[in-house]
Amino acid sequence: MPKRQRIEDPFWSEYIRLVREVVVPYQWDALNDRVPEAEPSYAIRNFKIAAGEERGRFRGMVFQDSDVAKWLEAAAYLLETEPDPALEAAADEVIGLIGRAQGDDGYVNTYFTLEEPEGRWTNLAECHELYVAGHLIEAGVAYWRATGKTSLLRIASRLADYIDTVFGPEPGKLHGYDGHPEIELALMKLYEASGNEAYMRLSQYFLNQRGAKPDFYSDQWEKRGGAVHFHELDMNRDLAYSQAHLPVREQRSAEGHAVRLVYMCAGMADVAAETGDEEMMEACRRLWRSIVSRRMYITGGIGSQRHGESFTLDYDLPGDTAYAETCASIGLVFFARRMLEHDPHAEYADVMERALYNTVVGGMSRDGRRFFYVNPLEVFPALIGRNRNYDHVKPVRQGWFGCACCPPNIARLLASLGQYIYVGKGRTIYANLYIGGESRWEIDGAEVMLEQQSDYAWNGKSRLTIRTGRPVELTLALRIPDWTDASGVELLVNGALHPIEGAIADGYARLTRAWESGDQVDIRFPLEIRRMKGHPSVRHTVGKVALQRGPFVYCLEEADNGPELHRLRLPGDGELLARRDGSLLGGLTVIEGTGERISDPPDEDKLYAADVDWGTEPAALRWIPYYAWANRGEGEMAVWIGESGEEG
Amino acid sequence: MPKRQRIEDPFWSEYIRLVREVVVPYQWDALNDRVPEAEPSYAIRNFKIAAGEERGRFRGMVFQDSDVAKWLEAAAYLLETEPDPALEAAADEVIGLIGRAQGDDGYVNTYFTLEEPEGRWTNLAECHELYVAGHLIEAGVAYWRATGKTSLLRIASRLADYIDTVFGPEPGKLHGYDGHPEIELALMKLYEASGNEAYMRLSQYFLNQRGAKPDFYSDQWEKRGGAVHFHELDMNRDLAYSQAHLPVREQRSAEGHAVRLVYMCAGMADVAAETGDEEMMEACRRLWRSIVSRRMYITGGIGSQRHGESFTLDYDLPGDTAYAETCASIGLVFFARRMLEHDPHAEYADVMERALYNTVVGGMSRDGRRFFYVNPLEVFPALIGRNRNYDHVKPVRQGWFGCACCPPNIARLLASLGQYIYVGKGRTIYANLYIGGESRWEIDGAEVMLEQQSDYAWNGKSRLTIRTGRPVELTLALRIPDWTDASGVELLVNGALHPIEGAIADGYARLTRAWESGDQVDIRFPLEIRRMKGHPSVRHTVGKVALQRGPFVYCLEEADNGPELHRLRLPGDGELLARRDGSLLGGLTVIEGTGERISDPPDEDKLYAADVDWGTEPAALRWIPYYAWANRGEGEMAVWIGESGEEG
Repeated sequence: MPKRQRIEDPFWSEYIRLVREVVVPYQWDALNDRVPEAEPSYAIRNFKIAAGEERGRFRGMVFQDSDVAKWLEAAAYLLETEPDPALEAAADEVIGLIGRAQGDDGYVNTYFTLEEPEGRWTNLAECHELYVAGHLIEAGVAYWRATGKTSLLRIASRLADYIDTVFGPEPGKLHGYDGHPEIELALMKLYEASGNEAYMRLSQYFLNQRGAKPDFYSDQWEKRGGAVHFHELDMNRDLAYSQAHLPVREQRSAEGHAVRLVYMCAGMADVAAETGDEEMMEACRRLWRSIVSRRMYITGGIGSQRHGESFTLDYDLPGDTAYAETCASIGLVFFARRMLEHDPHAEYADVMERALYNTVVGGMSRDGRRFFYVNPLEVFPALIGRNRNYDHVKPVRQGWFGCACCPPNIARLLASLGQYIYVGKGRTIYANLYIGGESRWEIDGAEVMLEQQSDYAWNGKSRLTIRTGRPVELTLALRIPDWTDASGVELLVNGALHPIEGAIADGYARLTRAWESGDQVDIRFPLEIRRMKGHPSVRHTVGKVALQRGPFVYCLEEADNGPELHRLRLPGDGELLARRDGSLLGGLTVIEGTGERISDPPDEDKLYAADVDWGTEPAALRWIPYYAWANRGEGEMAVWIGESGEEG
Repeated sequence: MPKRQRIEDPFWSEYIRLVREVVVPYQWDALNDRVPEAEPSYAIRNFKIAAGEERGRFRGMVFQDSDVAKWLEAAAYLLETEPDPALEAAADEVIGLIGRAQGDDGYVNTYFTLEEPEGRWTNLAECHELYVAGHLIEAGVAYWRATGKTSLLRIASRLADYIDTVFGPEPGKLHGYDGHPEIELALMKLYEASGNEAYMRLSQYFLNQRGAKPDFYSDQWEKRGGAVHFHELDMNRDLAYSQAHLPVREQRSAEGHAVRLVYMCAGMADVAAETGDEEMMEACRRLWRSIVSRRMYITGGIGSQRHGESFTLDYDLPGDTAYAETCASIGLVFFARRMLEHDPHAEYADVMERALYNTVVGGMSRDGRRFFYVNPLEVFPALIGRNRNYDHVKPVRQGWFGCACCPPNIARLLASLGQYIYVGKGRTIYANLYIGGESRWEIDGAEVMLEQQSDYAWNGKSRLTIRTGRPVELTLALRIPDWTDASGVELLVNGALHPIEGAIADGYARLTRAWESGDQVDIRFPLEIRRMKGHPSVRHTVGKVALQRGPFVYCLEEADNGPELHRLRLPGDGELLARRDGSLLGGLTVIEGTGERISDPPDEDKLYAADVDWGTEPAALRWIPYYAWANRGEGEMAVWIGESGEEG
């Protein structure tokens, strides 16, 4: 990873600005119950009560503390790239408060401290106790890296040390693990920051213990006399929901709550890489394959159903009832980056890019004020509320949620987006994302700056410039995205075409040389409009086509194409053109073409007719990138469109 | 209606035999808690306790009494066509018991008598009190017609008289109506049997009161202090669920619980016809149009979602998550027959036939022992239990249900099927269904027997023979089904071809003459295989085709076509052949043809691929009638199949 990273990119800078200027300040107000139109969060207030500085009862979700932690983590990433004394002061203030709410033994959790002081660690399946701790630890590490201040890191370490006294293989400790994975990856960050191997061992213990028999959750549930925290799901006994149905090394398919699965996988990848545990890494690869080859939407969304916000079965990818939670795609990005760090292969970055440019950025409105939790690929607003299978679907982005997991997760991911662009391994820098900015590296004792000027999102071009005090030998490995064919890629070194064919390994074009300051690499990908088809086992996409151009998956909206989008067809041979529309939704490239619309039938009252071919009329079709949907009011949307005149 | 009716039909007789020999005896055992593999019903036991002949508490659903009533009604219809002393003795015994459980005031309802004696009529929205009474009344009328015995009719009349003292426009009476319509049509039967206009007025009152403001259910709910009987649905305030959202005359679309809607419509049609209430009849026509032109599956199923077992929105007809309850299609048959009696028009009979030959008969297994409650048009067994949107779908028929509404409803409909074949109006006999048997009529003082030898279901032929003591002038109106074109129909009178063109009115070929005994009419419909398409506003069927031959809608099963049925395509011009298979599932006509199956892709791990045409391989396709599905174990099923090479 680069030592330092600053982003300046024609696509992403605006989103990062929104996080800085809108999302994080808004969230700060929300956490302090100062947003009139939103339900109070109570999150800061809970800490004040726990610190003895206010009176009252705990309110909010059992994991409400994690909102504060995620906010701190996002704030830290913002501070890392740009000083902001007011933000830092607010962060310091809340860190102080957390410290005062921490128990003498290191425990921090306002729910249990205030509501169930005797209930600590009695309901790991449901109560997110270690999950909340994990977020606090992530925030502590991030804040220390950003500011050098150890205040929150100390709190986090004390908490982790205390957890280490509670859980572990030794007799008398609890042999359990959290229902919602998160502590595992957080402890690995703390280990990396501190060098203290105890944190790594504890993370490893949680992962190895997961799915062990006899089952820990049932045991706790019985000991509690069957007390249940969340009644809608059977978290205590539906073990797959929490990926506790099998030891992690034996899990062969992505099951259960999608966010939990990818958070778990991120932790597994960290531990496997650090410990050289090839068996666990192989489990990561299997779960990755299960997700991306059988259970992922073309938008990088995962989780096919509302029930349990979970995976269902291979190739079950309904577009209209999809859950595809924003947080799950964020977790998929976490998982992908860790796989890249261990085993740089372009496929991981392809999926990371797919999730980022479509579901993740689509989760936020263009003003940073409204968010999607659920990211369907097909929406019929009129049906929502009528057909109750769509109860979870919102036709437009919503304000802050009661369970506010997605907005702060978008914030912390975008604020730390620099961590996802490159991976350094030895003398190789892998460019995984073509996002403009500067990154600083220390290679072989030399300070190296890699400058990227990217026009990738819309035009498929990027230029990398090396700045170094002295020539440095290293390999630049430039990802060839899965949406293009290497044969069409132009690679130029200092303006001279460089043959690409033999240079490709693992999906990267590799350039090894002694680089001098000012050396430039240009890479240009042909931005064709691609007609995507789903695997024929996906019944929801058979006979249909989705358009992709560069990293963007496209969709049709009612605003451009009128209602009843399912009546539209794209001929197999119809010409499609990309056109820049600088005024539409902040500027984007639309795709246009002529398709057909099935005409109204001669007898409107005839629901079924024999031996007819419905007539069609030509229809001007217009697609916009999926991420930009639902910014023009409520209307139908569809990613997949029927293809006419095609045979397979 | 004919005076008497006996069925002897190559398709239907076997089902009626099953009702007589299997379903009704099995149900009798079930009602008496003598079926070891089923949950006890408690239904008879509840009556014994209410009669003071056993001790214990009420058990079962709040409408458990209706199971006994439906059984009695089915038994009555069986007795009407064939004596069965043992069955009659059992019926007499349970009628005696009901009589002893009836209150001095005429009230019968074991739930309220035993569980909530103070709660009578306090929760009309939820507790089915008048619904249960309606079923008892229907049974009383049927038993009297079948046996001449007035025992149950007297119980029913006393109950109806009592209800008449409780409900009505007069001050001091309750101005309410039942959440589940049924009493309305039942009172009309009682009125017809007794001539007592009070019953008609009460039925009319219930219908006119429905949807009145201020809302009766909310009022009762408040008076009960918010007590709720069923917690899963908000029956007290979701007024459309019970069709109480608007006065019935103002309802323009089929809303809410599908069974309730069609039961209500049946009552409305009865009242409108009897009272000449054209406004109410117009409401019936509107609701009919809403159902059959916008909200009905091609199988005659209605109710697009599990939630509330209800309608959703125009053209929302998902095949896989369909509810399409068997009872709802039965209710649709009730509604259609009443419309036919008032206003004979073939369309009503077309829909009646569609429901009967597909969803209704498909609701029962070929051995009469297993039943479908939910009738999807597309099933993926592997998904059930994994994608929880399919929780209501069963891939094979089930034994008796906890809420045992469908099996006894199938039994009473099939046992009374003779009531649905003809409608007599003045000197016209309308043949609505081509089901073989004898019917006896009294026309102009003459006894006329109409004998039908039908080979309609599989071969599209029927012969009607008239037997009469003296020549009788009347019109035979023979329905031209919606699945054929009149131009291809052959009509023969005493062996001589009769021109059909000018003879058709309202969908019937009309033959008026002075018929002599032995006169024969042959009608022959060309049984072509029809490729059905859904209205283009139905997004679930766009680009797809379903086959129909005669009254039967066909489906593909995995048993014949292998798994992943969605990969199959039927070319627009592919030849299809019907073939009799005498050994398959009791003998049926299959449809065969050559289609194509999308091949496995070259890279199994690639979930999305660009600019590919999946290869196809030829596939021998075989369809069976929908009603016969799921009789060969668990497997995929699909009614709709993708059409290839088609443009609209």
